[in-house]
Amino acid sequence: MTFSDLAGFEALLREAPEPDAAARAAAEARNARLTKPAGSLGRLEEIAIWYAGWRGTARPRIARPQILVFAGNHGIAARGVSAFPVEVTAQMVANFEHGGAAINQLARNAGATLSVHALDLDRPTEDFTRGPAMDEAACVAALRTGWDAVDPEADLLVTGEMGIGNTTSAAALANALFGGTAEDWVGRGTGVDDTGLALKREVCAAGVARHAGKPPLGLLAALGGREVAAMAGAIARARRLRIPVLLDGFICTAAAAVLDRTVPGALDHCLAGHVSAEHAHPRLLAALAKEPLLAMNQRLGEGTGAALAIPVLRGAVECLSGMATFAEAGVSGG
Amino acid sequence: MTFSDLAGFEALLREAPEPDAAARAAAEARNARLTKPAGSLGRLEEIAIWYAGWRGTARPRIARPQILVFAGNHGIAARGVSAFPVEVTAQMVANFEHGGAAINQLARNAGATLSVHALDLDRPTEDFTRGPAMDEAACVAALRTGWDAVDPEADLLVTGEMGIGNTTSAAALANALFGGTAEDWVGRGTGVDDTGLALKREVCAAGVARHAGKPPLGLLAALGGREVAAMAGAIARARRLRIPVLLDGFICTAAAAVLDRTVPGALDHCLAGHVSAEHAHPRLLAALAKEPLLAMNQRLGEGTGAALAIPVLRGAVECLSGMATFAEAGVSGG
Repeated sequence: MTFSDLAGFEALLREAPEPDAAARAAAEARNARLTKPAGSLGRLEEIAIWYAGWRGTARPRIARPQILVFAGNHGIAARGVSAFPVEVTAQMVANFEHGGAAINQLARNAGATLSVHALDLDRPTEDFTRGPAMDEAACVAALRTGWDAVDPEADLLVTGEMGIGNTTSAAALANALFGGTAEDWVGRGTGVDDTGLALKREVCAAGVARHAGKPPLGLLAALGGREVAAMAGAIARARRLRIPVLLDGFICTAAAAVLDRTVPGALDHCLAGHVSAEHAHPRLLAALAKEPLLAMNQRLGEGTGAALAIPVLRGAVECLSGMATFAEAGVSGG
Repeated sequence: MTFSDLAGFEALLREAPEPDAAARAAAEARNARLTKPAGSLGRLEEIAIWYAGWRGTARPRIARPQILVFAGNHGIAARGVSAFPVEVTAQMVANFEHGGAAINQLARNAGATLSVHALDLDRPTEDFTRGPAMDEAACVAALRTGWDAVDPEADLLVTGEMGIGNTTSAAALANALFGGTAEDWVGRGTGVDDTGLALKREVCAAGVARHAGKPPLGLLAALGGREVAAMAGAIARARRLRIPVLLDGFICTAAAAVLDRTVPGALDHCLAGHVSAEHAHPRLLAALAKEPLLAMNQRLGEGTGAALAIPVLRGAVECLSGMATFAEAGVSGG
């Protein structure tokens, strides 16, 4: 099952599966019998039951979490929207491959597999203030890179990214999808100064003005990057496979938002792994009605915020699946 | 190095070691060279550097986290302050020993050792509205149980508890330590109704009125439980061994607060693992100037909130110790 154009991708998104209502109900019933006061595991109970519904069993396990990091280069980087030079994208891909980046440590900490996919780094997207960042074929190719990268045997997915300039791309995408102003959506990314921030806002506003009125997947091609589209493709594939997703920061969430604006409910298999320190991430999560699991003031990308949340979700699932019931343990109920 | 009375315990607390300033500075310098934008790991950077200072090395590891669960019974349980019967304490100890409780799952999830220490369950403390819950000898014995339970080779400690009635004990202790009213400090614990809540407030107020004016360790004996004193003993021992501690919920934090009120700074080796859903836990953490790592609305005790935070702290430490520097990775700085 695959696709060769944006219409085909959208059609697959529209026939995405729902969670298993019977498994969810069985998990709820099991949760009510476990040796703890009712509700005392708080949000852990809620996310474990959610996970059980998506995995189709009342006693699931998270044994094979997968982290995918996509890297891409952006035409708008030449405009000076980042504190780092564009060469850093490729240098960081090498760092991921040698195990030296933050996401390598956090993947190991979470017991997750990690793979890195560099998308045509020597072929940056076009400057979106002058025309679409990608044509349809380039966007479809990037979506398919993400789609194909998902391990069908994975039981949890995190998508991360690396791409100098990509907070500007994500801000323009979010602005075009949800309205508001460039001030609402543009932040300091990896750490630009006030001049850089003003420039990012200008570039965002120009891109949004140029591409306004396109449908969400058209906006993804027009304003996104290859790594942004790849994340959207991976998150869509995970839905078809009923693999739950932990969303990472602002750029990952902007990629995911394209799916939600295309088909309402398309992110029902996603939790927000964290809320980042990037200016508009809280606004974007609120627009998607996603409550983050963690709030550690991170703003690195790479999937690092979501990777840190993997053990939290796994702990919740372990409680649901591993605890004894009152009857099994011979404990008097409340 | 041990103690035989409360004065001896206090003397040990007063000569507690400070973190290693040189190791902390080396960790800060290393953090500044790692392949990420400055500050982009947010709070992870801060807690990893904190941990490095306590462990005395710029590149620490968390390889041997220890979870201790202490259980005790309370004279005030006979007053009906809990939604559960007092037999549940012993039943839950058996459940811990058989691996069926939430803390068993979360210890495994965190890669931590877990041991359970039942303190004279057949000998509840006295009803603290009529006299001290424990005499000095009983309180010292409980402190020593905690003190002796800490593994000197551990590199992180979590203390948890089980004891029907112990949110009332902890509320009275916090109220006596920090002032305010019973309404400020008493919550629903495992889930009492409005009548139960009113009764808990009465019991708390009566206990505070009876024992007001005692020094903090005197209040621990007068209002605490054996498991509360054991947690305080373990946290104090961890400080002497420079083992960092993740505090759990309201009862654990009330036990820790006794140390802080006895010797200011006695909890510098502690982070708040989470903020619980128990009414006064946010107030208590604010009184200790502790910012929680997690907020998952838990209210179970057993160490479950802190255990869930172990992989978060370990992820932070893994980033500090495992990442490549800009120079090592050949990445251009910002």
